[in-house]
Amino acid sequence: MPEMHAARRARAQEKIAALGCDAALITSLPNVRYLTGLVSSNAAVLLPASGPAVLATDSRYAEAAARDCADIELVSERGTEIALAALAGRRGARTLAFEAQEVTVERYEALQELGRGPQLVPLGRAIEELRTVKDETEIALLTRACAITCAAFAGVLPLITAGRSERALALALERAMTDHGADGPAFASIVASGPNGATPHHAPGERRLEPGDLITIDCGARLGGYHADMTRTVALGEPAGWQREIYEVVAAAQLAGIAAAVPGADLEAVDAAARDLIAAAGYGECFQHGLGHGVGLEVHEAPIIGYGRTGTLMDRVPVTVEPGIYLPGKGGVRIEDTLVVRAGAGAAGAAEILTATTKELLVL
Amino acid sequence: MPEMHAARRARAQEKIAALGCDAALITSLPNVRYLTGLVSSNAAVLLPASGPAVLATDSRYAEAAARDCADIELVSERGTEIALAALAGRRGARTLAFEAQEVTVERYEALQELGRGPQLVPLGRAIEELRTVKDETEIALLTRACAITCAAFAGVLPLITAGRSERALALALERAMTDHGADGPAFASIVASGPNGATPHHAPGERRLEPGDLITIDCGARLGGYHADMTRTVALGEPAGWQREIYEVVAAAQLAGIAAAVPGADLEAVDAAARDLIAAAGYGECFQHGLGHGVGLEVHEAPIIGYGRTGTLMDRVPVTVEPGIYLPGKGGVRIEDTLVVRAGAGAAGAAEILTATTKELLVL
Repeated sequence: MPEMHAARRARAQEKIAALGCDAALITSLPNVRYLTGLVSSNAAVLLPASGPAVLATDSRYAEAAARDCADIELVSERGTEIALAALAGRRGARTLAFEAQEVTVERYEALQELGRGPQLVPLGRAIEELRTVKDETEIALLTRACAITCAAFAGVLPLITAGRSERALALALERAMTDHGADGPAFASIVASGPNGATPHHAPGERRLEPGDLITIDCGARLGGYHADMTRTVALGEPAGWQREIYEVVAAAQLAGIAAAVPGADLEAVDAAARDLIAAAGYGECFQHGLGHGVGLEVHEAPIIGYGRTGTLMDRVPVTVEPGIYLPGKGGVRIEDTLVVRAGAGAAGAAEILTATTKELLVL
Repeated sequence: MPEMHAARRARAQEKIAALGCDAALITSLPNVRYLTGLVSSNAAVLLPASGPAVLATDSRYAEAAARDCADIELVSERGTEIALAALAGRRGARTLAFEAQEVTVERYEALQELGRGPQLVPLGRAIEELRTVKDETEIALLTRACAITCAAFAGVLPLITAGRSERALALALERAMTDHGADGPAFASIVASGPNGATPHHAPGERRLEPGDLITIDCGARLGGYHADMTRTVALGEPAGWQREIYEVVAAAQLAGIAAAVPGADLEAVDAAARDLIAAAGYGECFQHGLGHGVGLEVHEAPIIGYGRTGTLMDRVPVTVEPGIYLPGKGGVRIEDTLVVRAGAGAAGAAEILTATTKELLVL
């Protein structure tokens, strides 16, 4: 969709002009994809404050770029960013904004060694900020990715039985995603059973599910470049009192976080809405990670919802809300939805939840 | 295997001492894994020129680090590199080597803002250079990853039939890898059929295989962090004269490249051994990428075998050899093995080929 990408570039150019820069060198690959549609492991975009953009990629991707980005001037070079910075200089740019959060010190020095090239100034996260608010094409892809995730999750529930390994369950889940049309998993699925549930990012291993386990499953499908993210914790056999208790605390905290995720809400206040509830229940020390993050062309992107984060939510920003309680040696619970912050609805119902799987504690 | 990682750290410390630095801050995640065994998306190692190392990771991985890296001092912090740089300063380091090829300009500035912290000096690719020569534990993992790759490839040969989509074949291949024990694919598999074969890194799509196609399949299994990499091009139905011709040129070039991959060989000379043969056959313009690359904890790592690359091969260095010919609009051929450069064997037989699948043109 060349028009969609051209419109994104026009919005980015307004930001570059507002910074007073002659041009920007975009080297973050998700940003390159966002602005051009090109999927490449080696590409960069030269975006002047006004006028047409230039896309550089190497010979492996040149044919795809010519086909998919027919409205953009192409440069086929292995050293994409050096080629574009030199081109910017030849075309009269005196200042060139660059992505200091992405360019390494080594590559920066190579850009500086261009000599008579333009002066490098930091662009900041201008493109990442543009990316936080999604258009309906993006939300449609995320919605489908989340629906696939839910279908895959439902499909593997019958496989949650004593004796099955975490790894086997994770594999079955990822296969179910591609069976339902995903391009692949959005990230390495987490299946954390029993005491492994105390590790928020446990890598699924050979441990076999046992009656009495809580099992935390954190997974998502990837579709058209967009990343779903959902976590559910289920019980194998009748849960113990402590298991029901932490489940209920996390479930209530998750609903409180979702209710707080309205346009204009401070990121830190959304985090606090969930965190305060967990702390009030006496588990404050057992929830050490942030409450959530944006999802889109990256599985973790702006905005980050956490303690000490500044900024506010806006209409059409997809985020996760994922509180947890982790008890070392015992186990844990995490519940996570991907949702879209929406204006217009009632205060408590402002978010559109894309991961429609039940949050009742499933006892299998 | 704490002893193995301790031995690697000792070798790295010799390099740090030789550079005249008090300590090094290792932030490249494959390097962190190589030196400690920890698999984490947020971790760093402080390695003094002498004395014990310190490993920092965040709370999500703290339990895994305490379990798997019990012989290393641990710091649980989200800002891993800032915490370790500050610690280095408190422990008297005046110079701290950092990985300029990995640290972004933004993170570098944050390190500099520590104020009274140690002076930052570039470490270069000291750890990557250590990683090029593999120990037998690593070669054993690569050998198994390659064997899995070959088994998966053999398993999907019956699926190479007219009407099947590239995407379906790629999915079946990746499933076969995990069925054979892989942790997952080493990279997104390439299935490039018919004219798509002219794009070296074609993403498998909805095109359906047709009689008369050459089909290039580039895939690899990942096992225990190690990455296999193999490419074969097969024919669906009796190949045309031009297809046989480019296949034979590439196959001969690939053998010439392998024969040149002996300890002490210049990287550029290995590339030339294959490239000259392709150029002599009149296809020099149709082979624009490098001949190969190291494989290990990353699917592309040092050494890079290509035109203009300096350095030599050594005993126990696993690399790929993967020449190709790409004819825009028509199709292409690439043949790739993962092999281990070995001392001691005869000149032409010095390499140990790990991807044992036949290189005869398979006509299916």
